[in-house]
Amino acid sequence: MARDSRSRKKKASPSKKDGKLRYIPLGGLGEVGKNMYALEYEDSILVVDCGLMFPDDEMFGIDFVIPDIAYLEERKEKIVGIVITHGHEDHIGGLPFILPKIPSPLYGTKLTLGMVGNKLSEWAPAFTPDYREIRAGERVEMGPFSVRFIAVCHSVPDGVGLAIETPVGTVVHTGDFKLDPTPIDGRLTDYAAFSEEGKKGVLLLMSDSTNVERPGFTQSEHTLSGTIDRLFRQHRSRRIVISAFASNLHRVQQVVDAAARFNRKVVLVGRSMVKNVDLARELGYLHADDKTIVDIEDIGKVPPGSLVVMTTGSQGEPFSGLVLMSRGEHRVITLTEKDVVAIFATPIPGNEKMVSSTINRLFACGCEVVYEKEQAIHVSGHAAQDELRVMLNMVRPKFFVPVHGEYRHLVRHAKLAREMGVAPKNAFVLLNGDVLTLEKDKAVVKDRVQAGGIMVDGIALGEMQGSVLKERRELAEEGTVAVSLILTGEGTLASPPVFESRGFLHLEDAAKLREDLTVSVEKAVESLGAKAASDRELLETRIKGRMRDALRRFGRGRPMILPLVTVLGEKPLPERPRASSQGRGRRRKS
Amino acid sequence: MARDSRSRKKKASPSKKDGKLRYIPLGGLGEVGKNMYALEYEDSILVVDCGLMFPDDEMFGIDFVIPDIAYLEERKEKIVGIVITHGHEDHIGGLPFILPKIPSPLYGTKLTLGMVGNKLSEWAPAFTPDYREIRAGERVEMGPFSVRFIAVCHSVPDGVGLAIETPVGTVVHTGDFKLDPTPIDGRLTDYAAFSEEGKKGVLLLMSDSTNVERPGFTQSEHTLSGTIDRLFRQHRSRRIVISAFASNLHRVQQVVDAAARFNRKVVLVGRSMVKNVDLARELGYLHADDKTIVDIEDIGKVPPGSLVVMTTGSQGEPFSGLVLMSRGEHRVITLTEKDVVAIFATPIPGNEKMVSSTINRLFACGCEVVYEKEQAIHVSGHAAQDELRVMLNMVRPKFFVPVHGEYRHLVRHAKLAREMGVAPKNAFVLLNGDVLTLEKDKAVVKDRVQAGGIMVDGIALGEMQGSVLKERRELAEEGTVAVSLILTGEGTLASPPVFESRGFLHLEDAAKLREDLTVSVEKAVESLGAKAASDRELLETRIKGRMRDALRRFGRGRPMILPLVTVLGEKPLPERPRASSQGRGRRRKS
Repeated sequence: MARDSRSRKKKASPSKKDGKLRYIPLGGLGEVGKNMYALEYEDSILVVDCGLMFPDDEMFGIDFVIPDIAYLEERKEKIVGIVITHGHEDHIGGLPFILPKIPSPLYGTKLTLGMVGNKLSEWAPAFTPDYREIRAGERVEMGPFSVRFIAVCHSVPDGVGLAIETPVGTVVHTGDFKLDPTPIDGRLTDYAAFSEEGKKGVLLLMSDSTNVERPGFTQSEHTLSGTIDRLFRQHRSRRIVISAFASNLHRVQQVVDAAARFNRKVVLVGRSMVKNVDLARELGYLHADDKTIVDIEDIGKVPPGSLVVMTTGSQGEPFSGLVLMSRGEHRVITLTEKDVVAIFATPIPGNEKMVSSTINRLFACGCEVVYEKEQAIHVSGHAAQDELRVMLNMVRPKFFVPVHGEYRHLVRHAKLAREMGVAPKNAFVLLNGDVLTLEKDKAVVKDRVQAGGIMVDGIALGEMQGSVLKERRELAEEGTVAVSLILTGEGTLASPPVFESRGFLHLEDAAKLREDLTVSVEKAVESLGAKAASDRELLETRIKGRMRDALRRFGRGRPMILPLVTVLGEKPLPERPRASSQGRGRRRKS
Repeated sequence: MARDSRSRKKKASPSKKDGKLRYIPLGGLGEVGKNMYALEYEDSILVVDCGLMFPDDEMFGIDFVIPDIAYLEERKEKIVGIVITHGHEDHIGGLPFILPKIPSPLYGTKLTLGMVGNKLSEWAPAFTPDYREIRAGERVEMGPFSVRFIAVCHSVPDGVGLAIETPVGTVVHTGDFKLDPTPIDGRLTDYAAFSEEGKKGVLLLMSDSTNVERPGFTQSEHTLSGTIDRLFRQHRSRRIVISAFASNLHRVQQVVDAAARFNRKVVLVGRSMVKNVDLARELGYLHADDKTIVDIEDIGKVPPGSLVVMTTGSQGEPFSGLVLMSRGEHRVITLTEKDVVAIFATPIPGNEKMVSSTINRLFACGCEVVYEKEQAIHVSGHAAQDELRVMLNMVRPKFFVPVHGEYRHLVRHAKLAREMGVAPKNAFVLLNGDVLTLEKDKAVVKDRVQAGGIMVDGIALGEMQGSVLKERRELAEEGTVAVSLILTGEGTLASPPVFESRGFLHLEDAAKLREDLTVSVEKAVESLGAKAASDRELLETRIKGRMRDALRRFGRGRPMILPLVTVLGEKPLPERPRASSQGRGRRRKS
């Protein structure tokens, strides 16, 4: 793991017994991902969600980013509970790494806890969580907090928003939501509960900002049923392959229902698809009889025209079912011009190129492809502008904090709240780590706590210097040339220098350049006299300078130069501190 | 430079004096970028366009990709001319690297040649091109080809399509086009010329496939005038910053015109913006009086409310004007809440995240931002489905080849042509390197020539092994650990091994791991006895294996291991061939 540059090293400010409520976002503000929020009142902290974020292109070799929880670790005995609003990665994905550090009762609905369970058993099998299953509509006391769980519609079933009574006033957190008028599972967003809280009086509202840029209402998940139906009707004799998010069980349900209507069997492909569907069927969130679902090993027993393959890969993820099929590398399914493939999802920002390449490869397989540019194949799980307005109308909060969005989303959502009647100074655009301190009639932001991202490198790496990523970037751009020097105690070369390059012109094929580099190194050593053996820093600087000159004369870019120096008869150096910010260079204690 | 994996090493098939016409795409098919097409008839070759493509994320350190022109280099004496259809990078960007290798007369309109000139003087200043300026409407004879230049509307002025009479029949190439009914410069796509060719009879049509996924007609550039006008009207007292493509001189003209109407001065920011506007004004393609354009150094003399800043950076390019401003790093312009910034362009696929980050930073500067999600701020320069239908109706070709598009675009455009009456077997989806051999009534694809991409690494690198990119990828993902070993002639360690890591856990901070690695290396050397000094391949394999085991025990990922071996008293090894495909490993001649 590595603390990224946004991590703030500032000492967390101590909380006080002052009768004030503190709202502290630790993730999810100014970004879409790693949502995590804390509410602190005197000796008690309530945590909401614990997500991860996928890395951007610059984070070489990083698998995901989780919130920096230094603030909570220092106060873990104060935590009265962690509430999970729904089962998406950006709300539960940090748990395997974070929960063991702040073990606390974990509250969530049945499906959400099931999804958390799958995650924990994979990534933190040794840890025993303290699950507390709740239902929408219930109220649970956690220390000074009385938490009411409110049903909300979203792109995964069983999501909740929260109304949290505190000694200072009620805090409402929408969770990720939309106001779907015709949800597939019939479970509506609970307008009545939000309105009721609004009537009683709400101190603070935190609301989902993802789709604040979209005018109007987000369409109902149900609107896809027409597209799905048409797909089945038009291709009665062809095998149908459908790709969608594995967590969007509403969409899977619609496909399963259509399959049953059109007498097709469903084959599930992709680990997360199989896992989520198994879980949802077991817990009663997905209804499919055993005859409809067929194991992939039995696919040969069903004629293609009687099959639907439901697979992962709608985002072009490298090892997903659909991508393997598009590459002709899936162990069971080979696509041909007899297949029709439908991608029931739009690319998440950043995935556009991967999705586009996948579609091109599917065309090259000869299949017919139904995708974004063709038909209505996706609806969002997040509320658009008018739904956000409705939420503000229902809850009518005194103070407002837009959450779950990039910076511009937060700014625009705050503006929208002001247009809807929130007093201009009462709508706060916060960033992770900002502390909003609330009294009954007053809210101020003046403190900050440590917050930011911890980069996780698959195998947990412990803390890693931030400069490592910078070095990876340089290696990626220019490659490296390593040189080994062997010096006598008098500072003369005991043997000719040896070079190795990687990610750079291969020196074996460039005799002239290697000769020039050898001369550069020899001259660098000579120029220092006896100092070559005693002043390592000077030697390395001189060698790098001379080698870089030789490379420049050759017009060969700027590979990272990596000198390895041995002075014969000398023990290897003990631990030396590395100049952490200077990427290429190194410093030694003088 | 490096030949990418798509380059085909197959020997180019020799052309024959058989009275047949060959159409050979060398770039631009199955991709958006590096457009280059050849028409060959017996002893003569006509080349159309010579573009570059920007690299994808996997091409570490690569600046751009140009077409592989091995086929043309072997036949350069046959080339009768290179015709450039318009001045965009994906049509002219390869010229500085390719034209010196196949020096030939270069045909283009005045503005196009001006843009080519800027490019050549920057990248190939020593080369003297043989420019042949043409005008739309003219006809020029080039060997057996008689080329008619036809005006087309596009997002850069002065573009042309081509009608090429050959002994076998007429070939029409649309170039990049749209059927803008109200172009800013009043220069319409020449329907009459295309229709006339259609009436006379067209053997083959190549048509722009970029927007084949979009239904209807692409909107006129003129539709932006409303948005621009509103922007100026709504913000009379604020400084306005506008970002757009530097080559879209129509859009720059609209901004300049609005500035004049609203009594504002225009300041140009960004090298390519300044260059293109200078050129276009000089050649008469952009009309702005000297009082309207103000030098950036004089910006302080104009009150903010009387200024428009016209800048590059609409794609979030790292060192562009708008991005520097958004980072607070521009040497002259500092953005505040008093500014309004409008981005008059949508992201090109792949640039979405860079654009999004730029917008977030602009919000953080406090400015008001007008962008994609807000208003109509962009229209495409390429024909949509109905325009493509109109083109097919006008030209009515016997044979059809969709060009300028990803694979799915080509497939869909071929389908559209069939729907419009092209005989199903006469619409060809080709890839770069495919040879379409045409007779009066017959067209077949059976030959292929070498084609693909040459990767250019900024400074021309000559040919570079493909494995270099693979190594860069590994370095980026995992970093590297280099180890220097000094052996006596008897194969014992003469000194303890020295380690250096980059892009990986810093070994100075991991004493235990460094100790383990030292032991691994010592054991590896011991296990080989005298062989350690004589069998370098075995030694390296053994060292890598043992070090990797130690790293695995530590749970520390798989950095690339780079051993540098010196045997005292031995000369350094002469050039050794490197196993080019095996990334990590190396082989020596046995």
